[in-house]
Amino acid sequence: MWPTAVDTSLELRERYSHDWTEDLRFLPDAVALPGSVEVLQQILAYAYEQDIPIIPAGGRTGLSGGMLPVQGGWVVSLEKLNRILTIDTANLYAVVQAGVITQTLQEAVETVGLFYPPDPSSRGSCTIGGNIAHNAGGVRAVKYGTTREYVLGLEAFLPDGRPLRTGSRTLKNSTGYNLTQLLVGSEGTLAVIHTAILKLLPKPRYARTLLLGFPDARSAVAAVVAVLQKGILPTAIEFMERDAVLFGQAYLGEKLYSGADTYGGLLLIEVDGSVPEVLEAECAEIEAVAFSAGATQSWYAQTADERERLWRLRRCLGIAVKSSGPYKEEDTVVPRTALPDLLEKVKSLGKKYGFRSVCYGHVGDGNLHVNILREYLPQKVWDEEIPQAVEELFRFVVAHGGALSGEHGIGWVQRRYMPIQFSPDELALMKALKATFDPKGLLNPGKIFP
Amino acid sequence: MWPTAVDTSLELRERYSHDWTEDLRFLPDAVALPGSVEVLQQILAYAYEQDIPIIPAGGRTGLSGGMLPVQGGWVVSLEKLNRILTIDTANLYAVVQAGVITQTLQEAVETVGLFYPPDPSSRGSCTIGGNIAHNAGGVRAVKYGTTREYVLGLEAFLPDGRPLRTGSRTLKNSTGYNLTQLLVGSEGTLAVIHTAILKLLPKPRYARTLLLGFPDARSAVAAVVAVLQKGILPTAIEFMERDAVLFGQAYLGEKLYSGADTYGGLLLIEVDGSVPEVLEAECAEIEAVAFSAGATQSWYAQTADERERLWRLRRCLGIAVKSSGPYKEEDTVVPRTALPDLLEKVKSLGKKYGFRSVCYGHVGDGNLHVNILREYLPQKVWDEEIPQAVEELFRFVVAHGGALSGEHGIGWVQRRYMPIQFSPDELALMKALKATFDPKGLLNPGKIFP
Repeated sequence: MWPTAVDTSLELRERYSHDWTEDLRFLPDAVALPGSVEVLQQILAYAYEQDIPIIPAGGRTGLSGGMLPVQGGWVVSLEKLNRILTIDTANLYAVVQAGVITQTLQEAVETVGLFYPPDPSSRGSCTIGGNIAHNAGGVRAVKYGTTREYVLGLEAFLPDGRPLRTGSRTLKNSTGYNLTQLLVGSEGTLAVIHTAILKLLPKPRYARTLLLGFPDARSAVAAVVAVLQKGILPTAIEFMERDAVLFGQAYLGEKLYSGADTYGGLLLIEVDGSVPEVLEAECAEIEAVAFSAGATQSWYAQTADERERLWRLRRCLGIAVKSSGPYKEEDTVVPRTALPDLLEKVKSLGKKYGFRSVCYGHVGDGNLHVNILREYLPQKVWDEEIPQAVEELFRFVVAHGGALSGEHGIGWVQRRYMPIQFSPDELALMKALKATFDPKGLLNPGKIFP
Repeated sequence: MWPTAVDTSLELRERYSHDWTEDLRFLPDAVALPGSVEVLQQILAYAYEQDIPIIPAGGRTGLSGGMLPVQGGWVVSLEKLNRILTIDTANLYAVVQAGVITQTLQEAVETVGLFYPPDPSSRGSCTIGGNIAHNAGGVRAVKYGTTREYVLGLEAFLPDGRPLRTGSRTLKNSTGYNLTQLLVGSEGTLAVIHTAILKLLPKPRYARTLLLGFPDARSAVAAVVAVLQKGILPTAIEFMERDAVLFGQAYLGEKLYSGADTYGGLLLIEVDGSVPEVLEAECAEIEAVAFSAGATQSWYAQTADERERLWRLRRCLGIAVKSSGPYKEEDTVVPRTALPDLLEKVKSLGKKYGFRSVCYGHVGDGNLHVNILREYLPQKVWDEEIPQAVEELFRFVVAHGGALSGEHGIGWVQRRYMPIQFSPDELALMKALKATFDPKGLLNPGKIFP
């Protein structure tokens, strides 16, 4: 029997035909919006019996095409499963449904003095389920880690609708295979996650933020290692190259910091903790190290308003660049000392293949977002030569101990590059794991694997 | 051809017939001590062809019987693969072989100002490979997490000797399934790990330690939640009940703290950070909260010597209790608010089944080690009734959102209890994953699964 909450209207199918990845669109055969876990289970059981592909969807803000229904089937959006079930202030965990918006959870726990650190730029519209599926990162990962570090347990359905519970409501657990961490980052290909047990922290009482201007981009990313070697662990170390600042200013319609666009590279650094004087001393130490490493200008924020102003520029970069025209974004991650050479490699590839790139990202954890702009490139170059440039880029990244994706996942657009990082044996093992969970291959088909 | 480094002498087989689990002994058919990764690979390939079970071994300090050769086969000790290959002070990671002793790594990174937080009590003889296999915890997990949080990547062999590389040398990675985290805690049943990429932190500059006496054990563990709700995250919150203190004093042959054995329960709390004054203020705040929660005595350590003295009692408890006679140890973990009732449950089970228990552990993360002493219990009671008591205990733990094991793993002695925590579907899925890695079932057979 056709399950409830499954809709085949063209309007809905069009709305769920894309995420934030480039301009890609694939029309699903139907869209399901289950309003309860029970209805979700019925949908899965029915689809399994009928061999209908299922594409789990969250806030559809992904940048690797992870929710694109590339082989048709049903997009199953978890957005109506959006209840925060528990915030346990004594044991410091929350139990939330997959469709909860990340920022909603952040704000809910902050009202009771707690802290959920993962903070992707899309926090206002992405969901916890999507964050878990892609192991989302964000600006605080250098100190607090990525989504993975906050997932203590999961409730999910196997492709045929049988329930799967993993983990526990505890910080530690060495009981059987860690299916929790196998599901984190599995991009909806192994099971449909509907509920998560998330670790919370006490909310840091204070934060201080610095913006530092460097004459060139290379010296800015080179300074990251120097800062971290002082024994201070900042909450965030973000990089913006000059072109990124220009895109941001154009998008915001204002220049937030006088002269910021005259620097080749900027670092935005934040520290948090329980004692303001300590943070101020840390900022002074960071500033001194940065100046020794070539910085020539700094802006310092003490109040929440000033901090918000400093962050506004950084936070808008993704949308500023992406709304400017066609692009491809690579989510490269390398050990931090390789960042200057990575940046240079990007620019030299740009010269070789004729593209302009805009770089920014979470350089505190070695994660550089490389946006390749289409601009005036002919279609043939865009389709055939740029992928070669990306392949060269990823070969560089892997040779330096890095990975294809730091926080966006592989999804649809990066899967062709997987053999750069993994041997045929390793890819075969991953595929065999996929088949163990999903023998019919119905969950989010066409993703991750080349 | 019989590989080198495989020895069948009875002396060696006897030496590798046990770990630290109870008084259990199983004689392997041979012991292999490969001195290089290449020899390890040859041994595995040969054993796979000959259908010989392989039991990977580290420091053999496990408490769940994870390395017991219960079905014969070859114990493959990684102890000679004990090189620290890299300590990257700029990128904050180390690359180490599996046989490196945990304390050796801790000390090596501390000499260059860095910090490897996982700190199991057996740190002087356990190995990084064993820590990874069981996701070892230790006293600092409340603030710094368990071994899992420090493993960025692994190099291992599949059972037939084919290489498997996982992860990267970066903090973030969302590239394919997280095989790294699936291998962590898999107890040598999926692959033989020989090299690990481990995250390091800047070394905290200072620490301060408090010992707090409570009139009864229940009020001591109840105070844990109150302390953590002050927004301070201690490095360690350790609990000792009075009987544990008595065992410790008898083992050490001295009373470290005058009157400590008159308290029903003790909490040992440590904070660390970069500013001594902040730590002192935190200790004062913790002390005030603890006294409000019922503490009536405190001892405070400022110097490294005084700290070491406070820790000596806590660190000896495992060996003190275990060397006193036959015992069974349960590695229960629950959300922290359930600790007082868990302790009460243990004691009421003791009354019901007639056993004495000694409890201590990492209560900051809800992890209570429950030692059930054999003492004068008849063999029949020990063999038949005590497992029922343990089953009752684990049912309580799971019903309260906890898990069978917080940090010791399931191994041989806890596997019969797995159906308390997992459904038949979930166990079948784990077994299917095992078969995907190890279709012949040769890696550490007889472990984890009931």
